[in-house]
Amino acid sequence: MRQAGPIEAAIEASLAAALDTAAAPGAPARLVAALRHAVFPGGARVRPRLTLSVAAVCGGGRSPLAQAAAAAVELIHCASLVHDDMPCFDDAPTRRGRASVHAAFGERCALLAGDALIVLAFQTLGAGAVAAGRPERLPDMLALLASNTGMPLGIVAGQGWECEDWVQLPDYHRAKTASLFACASQLGAIAAGAEARPWKALGDWLGEAYQAADDLRDVAGDTSSLGKPTGRDLVLGRPNLVNEMGLAGALEHFEKLVDRAATSVPDVAQAPMLRALLRAEAERLVPPELRQRVGAVAHAAVA
Amino acid sequence: MRQAGPIEAAIEASLAAALDTAAAPGAPARLVAALRHAVFPGGARVRPRLTLSVAAVCGGGRSPLAQAAAAAVELIHCASLVHDDMPCFDDAPTRRGRASVHAAFGERCALLAGDALIVLAFQTLGAGAVAAGRPERLPDMLALLASNTGMPLGIVAGQGWECEDWVQLPDYHRAKTASLFACASQLGAIAAGAEARPWKALGDWLGEAYQAADDLRDVAGDTSSLGKPTGRDLVLGRPNLVNEMGLAGALEHFEKLVDRAATSVPDVAQAPMLRALLRAEAERLVPPELRQRVGAVAHAAVA
Repeated sequence: MRQAGPIEAAIEASLAAALDTAAAPGAPARLVAALRHAVFPGGARVRPRLTLSVAAVCGGGRSPLAQAAAAAVELIHCASLVHDDMPCFDDAPTRRGRASVHAAFGERCALLAGDALIVLAFQTLGAGAVAAGRPERLPDMLALLASNTGMPLGIVAGQGWECEDWVQLPDYHRAKTASLFACASQLGAIAAGAEARPWKALGDWLGEAYQAADDLRDVAGDTSSLGKPTGRDLVLGRPNLVNEMGLAGALEHFEKLVDRAATSVPDVAQAPMLRALLRAEAERLVPPELRQRVGAVAHAAVA
Repeated sequence: MRQAGPIEAAIEASLAAALDTAAAPGAPARLVAALRHAVFPGGARVRPRLTLSVAAVCGGGRSPLAQAAAAAVELIHCASLVHDDMPCFDDAPTRRGRASVHAAFGERCALLAGDALIVLAFQTLGAGAVAAGRPERLPDMLALLASNTGMPLGIVAGQGWECEDWVQLPDYHRAKTASLFACASQLGAIAAGAEARPWKALGDWLGEAYQAADDLRDVAGDTSSLGKPTGRDLVLGRPNLVNEMGLAGALEHFEKLVDRAATSVPDVAQAPMLRALLRAEAERLVPPELRQRVGAVAHAAVA
């Protein structure tokens, strides 16, 4: 879904506006700094780009409501990164190539920054519906955002599987990653006045593909290009597709998931454009040099 | 605001229904248990009782929307307790007379339980507005809940002042405690179809009174009746009114705040009943034996 500048500029502008709300006079300064650190500069912004891409092909373009929904999804994602990085979970010292929030601001600020970002996501969505003159779309959008963030099946539930003795890998990945992608695609549709349901599969498959790519890169990627350490799943005893399928199997699985995502795009006028963007995104997620490395390792294992 | 059984039963029923949503099939079991531990059995449920009392005197009784709003406020409160108790903040081993969530389920589950409860609060409010056939009231209610929970002035911001080197005590108490009370009273009004604004002062003053009572009990209370250790503010270097005003000064301040809360009640038919409930609540917050102890200590200090 990587597109020309305007879509990315719209995302950054919506996030900046949301953060400005949180940083209004009276706010404690360190927590404001921690919030900004958690959100800027961003990663690939893949979830909000999905929201705006779906809104665009559904005819909603970069409407204020679509932008608010995109920002809301990204704020939830940023919150989850801050809390997942904390010492009791991944204890990750770096994120996006620099200090993680707790490493830079301490555990207290990281805990509160995650909380504040979750609240800000719901606040941004509500304010966006009002500003866009579409308050009647809020109940469905709020329900989607909440169910894909919280319990029993959202990303918090997904992370919750890391507290269990036993976990079924697909359930874990579905909740931890795919749920927020499915939320992103469906919010884009509703924001544009379209039905949500036909856009769920796109988010589901893309989310699964994204998780598979993440697992692949954790095993076969290099730290400098990822901005975070590799091999963490093994160190942390976290489930990883590669352990289950091998490198070549995981790569094949990834390709299949991207295909399914592309096939699931409903038959709208701009569907071919959206499918082409998906292919480009797949190249970004698992770049040619990583594919080559996977091929070489798989070949060596067979030989 | 302590009333006969029905209001309390309504609160427990709404909370139970919300928790059942979170515990639906597919949820990780330990996190479900941690959520239930965080919410049941409850404390005094003072915030949801405020919501339902205001809704009642505004003519909204125990409507589904008022109940959802009451549950939402209490869920946010429970989330804040779980996160405030964690090792990086108060490191509190007990809460409401038994193990705190992190002590019982570990830090990971406590972190996620707080997150899930915040999300559940917004979800409960949204679902309540739809179930009550009042979706048009959702935008204002969502905005109130978010602004009084998050940044720059909600309870997360209030806790954020504990990360700063310097804090103005009234700002800290306003955000950390009074904001959610002001939210509770105003949500009750909106849920009943009344204007929110006239009910803000009641929540503000009652919240400040509640914080003053908490400070008093931290210094002069006894652990067994509170269900949590006393003297924690001193140990944790947290600001406490008693340090600033002395015990007698803090007690006098508390009484003044309760008076202001009672005076602020708008002139509705049932205002006298609500004012009487406030006086009863003040007796519960600072019981006679505590008043006597404060009097004795203050007397000894003068002598």
